[in-house]
Amino acid sequence: MSELRWDPLKKTWVIITLERGRRPRDFMNDRKQVNMTVCPFCYGREDKTPREIFAIRTDGSRPNTPGWKVRVIPNKYPVLRIEGELEKRGVGIYDAMNGIGAHEVVIETPDHDRSLAELAPAEITDVLKAYRARLLDLRKDPRFRYILLFKNHGVEAGAAIPHSHTQIIAVPITPNLTATELSVCQEYYKKKERCLFCDLLAQEREDRRRIIRDDGNFVVFAPYASRFPFEVRIAPARHSHDFALMADHELSALAEALKDALLRMRSVLRDPPYNFLLHTSPLMHLRLGKPGYWGSIPYDFHWHIDLVPRLTNNAGFEWGTGFFMNSTPPEEAARFMRAVDLSMSL
Amino acid sequence: MSELRWDPLKKTWVIITLERGRRPRDFMNDRKQVNMTVCPFCYGREDKTPREIFAIRTDGSRPNTPGWKVRVIPNKYPVLRIEGELEKRGVGIYDAMNGIGAHEVVIETPDHDRSLAELAPAEITDVLKAYRARLLDLRKDPRFRYILLFKNHGVEAGAAIPHSHTQIIAVPITPNLTATELSVCQEYYKKKERCLFCDLLAQEREDRRRIIRDDGNFVVFAPYASRFPFEVRIAPARHSHDFALMADHELSALAEALKDALLRMRSVLRDPPYNFLLHTSPLMHLRLGKPGYWGSIPYDFHWHIDLVPRLTNNAGFEWGTGFFMNSTPPEEAARFMRAVDLSMSL
Repeated sequence: MSELRWDPLKKTWVIITLERGRRPRDFMNDRKQVNMTVCPFCYGREDKTPREIFAIRTDGSRPNTPGWKVRVIPNKYPVLRIEGELEKRGVGIYDAMNGIGAHEVVIETPDHDRSLAELAPAEITDVLKAYRARLLDLRKDPRFRYILLFKNHGVEAGAAIPHSHTQIIAVPITPNLTATELSVCQEYYKKKERCLFCDLLAQEREDRRRIIRDDGNFVVFAPYASRFPFEVRIAPARHSHDFALMADHELSALAEALKDALLRMRSVLRDPPYNFLLHTSPLMHLRLGKPGYWGSIPYDFHWHIDLVPRLTNNAGFEWGTGFFMNSTPPEEAARFMRAVDLSMSL
Repeated sequence: MSELRWDPLKKTWVIITLERGRRPRDFMNDRKQVNMTVCPFCYGREDKTPREIFAIRTDGSRPNTPGWKVRVIPNKYPVLRIEGELEKRGVGIYDAMNGIGAHEVVIETPDHDRSLAELAPAEITDVLKAYRARLLDLRKDPRFRYILLFKNHGVEAGAAIPHSHTQIIAVPITPNLTATELSVCQEYYKKKERCLFCDLLAQEREDRRRIIRDDGNFVVFAPYASRFPFEVRIAPARHSHDFALMADHELSALAEALKDALLRMRSVLRDPPYNFLLHTSPLMHLRLGKPGYWGSIPYDFHWHIDLVPRLTNNAGFEWGTGFFMNSTPPEEAARFMRAVDLSMSL
């Protein structure tokens, strides 16, 4: 069992995994990726994983057998568990909750050797549909406040299994930086009756120096205050607060933009390790009193994806101060990314 | 020249270094530590660095010659520059400032091969005195809002030069997590007329499960909501908001506690890469209207040092959400740290 703990000084929630606590020696081999002879994410190994929650199958194959295109399973070693009541308690000056949540894995392709960037746009669209399906299902659970959806590519970015996959963790709290984004957008809307992110996108599209790709549906850009070299943000050009409300044709357009961005990043930075994080509206914000009802509160959040290649060993102060140092101006990063000739890298 | 940029959505300041912008190929060799044949931090190489700002010398030797015990120099490649007026401006929806600040390096020992943990307590005391001297001097500059003092040990923790050193960066903004700590403590004090951190220490000292060392002067403990495995916090047992106001005998006691903690960490985790970050009162909080006057506002900040071994490749969501996952309960970490027999590792 794990536990959620709140630090009142740092205003931070932490999941502490209690039962499989790692001892000092467990960290010694941590930098090596598991070199599995039998990959549990490949065809024919469906019995090596927990039973599937969702899959896209077009060949009529049965659950937990080969034939799937995208497969979603519970994480075999979940950091949070779905069973049980959420119990919140004080521990003197601290706060704690038992580790209730969901921890799922989206296996993006049956092909062990293809990364997300290498999938065809239609295959990436299927991955995005799986994300959407899981977000829509998990949010029905009134215990959850946010759904983390992230992907680690490469050992240095935290990927333990090389077969391309995404993790989904539903948590009973709103992470504090997510809460910050929401409150910033709400404050802005209260003042201006406009979406902060829309205004920001309008300025970027006018300026163009940090735009990497803009097809009118999705804008791919290097953020003005990029925290990391070659950080990339992808957002819908049209206002939308909730990734899970995207229509099929919008997911297809996103798949094109995402593939394009990943290929450019791969070309410029030689297949760097990277993290992918979805920022979408927190659930408490969507949940209008009645569990199960999903309102449309359109102008005070704008969903987006952050892509961060892991190029540097961050210095020690970033995690302690929330203040960053970046040695590549985003204008330069965007220029390099735009210059890629994708006909060469496909 | 560099620039400070503010992201209104993420509420984050970033230093973007414009002139020595790193291109894609510059990141390819980033994981290797510079293997210098001539280390500029060793005796006899004082002319390879900018002229010293401060040094501890007991042999009557002249500045910028051998004989020093601790030496502070401007960083040869500063991320912020001391010259010029601070210019704040809007960039449409964003905010920016020119890169005014100070960037210094504390060379902790003339000995190329000894790490901070290996210095004698009296030598560590000298390092701490150098920190104090620089903090007291830099805060006189009314352009600065915070002074970052941090140390990266090992390549994986961001150290580019192996010779043991600490970095000091004075910045014209208050980093947002520092501002959070301050406002949390102020709010608590307003309600209870007690220091949050003192209450937290009292609870930890009563509980004892997370205490690593407590000599009555300094408490070394694994924080209740440790964000990282084997994270260690060191704080004065007696209330103090400002590291720079520590007396000599307090710095001696801190040197003992710090050495002890570093040796325990080295023993348990086999000389791990680590980051060291000082959290002390923000300058705007100390500066009572009149530049140069340093008030004593004793109960709404409590300085502390965070020590974080870099054992894992953090997954992608931590930097985006401020929400952490830690696989080693701090009670376990403290137990391992307490169990070290330091007579063996000296």
